[in-house]
Amino acid sequence: MTKKITIAIDAMGGENSPFKTIKAIDHFCINNKNNKDFLINIFGDEDKIKKELNKYTLDENCIKIIHTTSVVSDEETPLTAIKNSKHTSMWNCIQSQVSGNSDISLSAGNTGVLLVISRMILKMMDQVSKPALAGLWPNKNGMNVVLDLGANIECDENNLVDFAEMGSALYKSLFPNKKPLVSLLNIGSEEIKGTETLKKTFKKLTNLSNENNFLFNGYIEGNKIMDGESNVIITDGFTGNIALKTAEGTAKFITDSLKESLTENLFSKLSLIFSYFSLKKFKKKLDPRKYNGAIFLGLNGPVVKSHGGTDYLGFYHSIDLCYKIIKGDMMMQIKENLSHLKKDDQ
Amino acid sequence: MTKKITIAIDAMGGENSPFKTIKAIDHFCINNKNNKDFLINIFGDEDKIKKELNKYTLDENCIKIIHTTSVVSDEETPLTAIKNSKHTSMWNCIQSQVSGNSDISLSAGNTGVLLVISRMILKMMDQVSKPALAGLWPNKNGMNVVLDLGANIECDENNLVDFAEMGSALYKSLFPNKKPLVSLLNIGSEEIKGTETLKKTFKKLTNLSNENNFLFNGYIEGNKIMDGESNVIITDGFTGNIALKTAEGTAKFITDSLKESLTENLFSKLSLIFSYFSLKKFKKKLDPRKYNGAIFLGLNGPVVKSHGGTDYLGFYHSIDLCYKIIKGDMMMQIKENLSHLKKDDQ
Repeated sequence: MTKKITIAIDAMGGENSPFKTIKAIDHFCINNKNNKDFLINIFGDEDKIKKELNKYTLDENCIKIIHTTSVVSDEETPLTAIKNSKHTSMWNCIQSQVSGNSDISLSAGNTGVLLVISRMILKMMDQVSKPALAGLWPNKNGMNVVLDLGANIECDENNLVDFAEMGSALYKSLFPNKKPLVSLLNIGSEEIKGTETLKKTFKKLTNLSNENNFLFNGYIEGNKIMDGESNVIITDGFTGNIALKTAEGTAKFITDSLKESLTENLFSKLSLIFSYFSLKKFKKKLDPRKYNGAIFLGLNGPVVKSHGGTDYLGFYHSIDLCYKIIKGDMMMQIKENLSHLKKDDQ
Repeated sequence: MTKKITIAIDAMGGENSPFKTIKAIDHFCINNKNNKDFLINIFGDEDKIKKELNKYTLDENCIKIIHTTSVVSDEETPLTAIKNSKHTSMWNCIQSQVSGNSDISLSAGNTGVLLVISRMILKMMDQVSKPALAGLWPNKNGMNVVLDLGANIECDENNLVDFAEMGSALYKSLFPNKKPLVSLLNIGSEEIKGTETLKKTFKKLTNLSNENNFLFNGYIEGNKIMDGESNVIITDGFTGNIALKTAEGTAKFITDSLKESLTENLFSKLSLIFSYFSLKKFKKKLDPRKYNGAIFLGLNGPVVKSHGGTDYLGFYHSIDLCYKIIKGDMMMQIKENLSHLKKDDQ
């Protein structure tokens, strides 16, 4: 029998938990009822979890509850969390990866605390200089990976090269049949553009580009992120965070304006009857819940952060992401990519 | 008689020029036919300009043609331009500001060359450490100013403070009755977030904040740029350029998806009949041509860069922007703001 994919879920983190986390687990189990290859370790207040679980008819072989006595609050700071959070659902989730009971952790709780305690418990991989936060972005042909989205505000060329290796490993685990095309985010596509760090990274990635790990596609500008021509987009955490949030803000501004326009008078409201299904499809394509889940890369085990404010469907997509990351053996892919880096970079 | 507002226009730069530039001038003159307070100096090939002008019935008191013999090509590099471009429409435009014949220059030509020769001819203001490129962004309540959009890839706290003073002067010239609220772009709104440079800038702007020049509103995240709560958003040229282009790319991705959805079948096409006027209003609100024109700040005279690919309507909005900048006496506002900086900063 092959080993099951085990996902550790912090059932208590984020808004409306454990209501949404348990509903998401149920949704995931229904969608994967024919796959008997996973086990979900649910961490949190046993009574509350059981109360939610009673609403559904979950296969008991797919889940296991691990009782914990406290929850990381939104106000907790990363500095105090190390002392305060040993009995929380979040801490015990990640701890279960060290003891070999889980392959991956997922939480919708306090981001800063999650990053700090993940790093402390799982420790950084020997070959990696800095860990990174990777996210999924919609594009014309599906989705791509962007990193770093905010773990490191300053990065040198070695950090950025590590991000390229880890980001393409993540992409390969999610899309096993594709060869990742890697691009470097910059303010122009010509080789002379950008900071010294970017120019050095450009040279290194050009030398490292190969069929097995990733193909380097050069610089990419902000307006091309969603063109679908690159699979993995590399940037420092400051720039990546600004780009991500600017994209979110722009999307909100446009869809709010559209909503306002389409409901402003009787005629436009009438038009909604005819365009209902098309607009629904449009909305579904852009639904941010489909891309929910940032992946913390560079530790001796993968950790996924769900948006705290998402609903059960967003959290479900994060569970699905965890499942795919383990199924695609991302950690092995990262190790392979980094070993190539070691050989070629010396 | 008060002095006329004189706008120097490079009629030859950008796609479809001088067709679009002359059509835009005609459109501007029609829209301002009751204001006899401006003169447009048109620089370029006299024969070509006259041929275009013959299509319209322009008041000859509003325009003046200055013949030039060459045009800056898109392939020209900033390095060679200083030697090669002395007889171009672009060069002579800016030169006319030095000789006192124009108050402001506008070109849709080669951006790099425009920045370099503007800086060489007009020279930097004594008090300014680095010039900046400012742009107009749509937001819920109208529009705001963002700078730097790409003139400087690395900026220190003094540069960013200069940008705040110049950006608020620009905002005050465009919206004379408003007190500009200035925000600093960062990856979080808490004081401890961001780079050392941002933290130092935060302190300086807090101290400089006052009723006469600008009110400092703290940090702003990328998703709030279009909320309409800040009037002037400050960032370095690398981050600003990434944010601008990411917003453009996101807007294009969403509107393309919407177009695709609303034309995919007979029902959705039928809906367009009912929503026609509402969607037109929606499109108009977001029309990038309304925000066309980046303003080069920090030189001894203002220069506006129109997007090269825009049409006559986009170029018209840039002419209108030039007119407002001079009418609102931006240069005086900048000097006033910078003098306050000198006093308070010592």
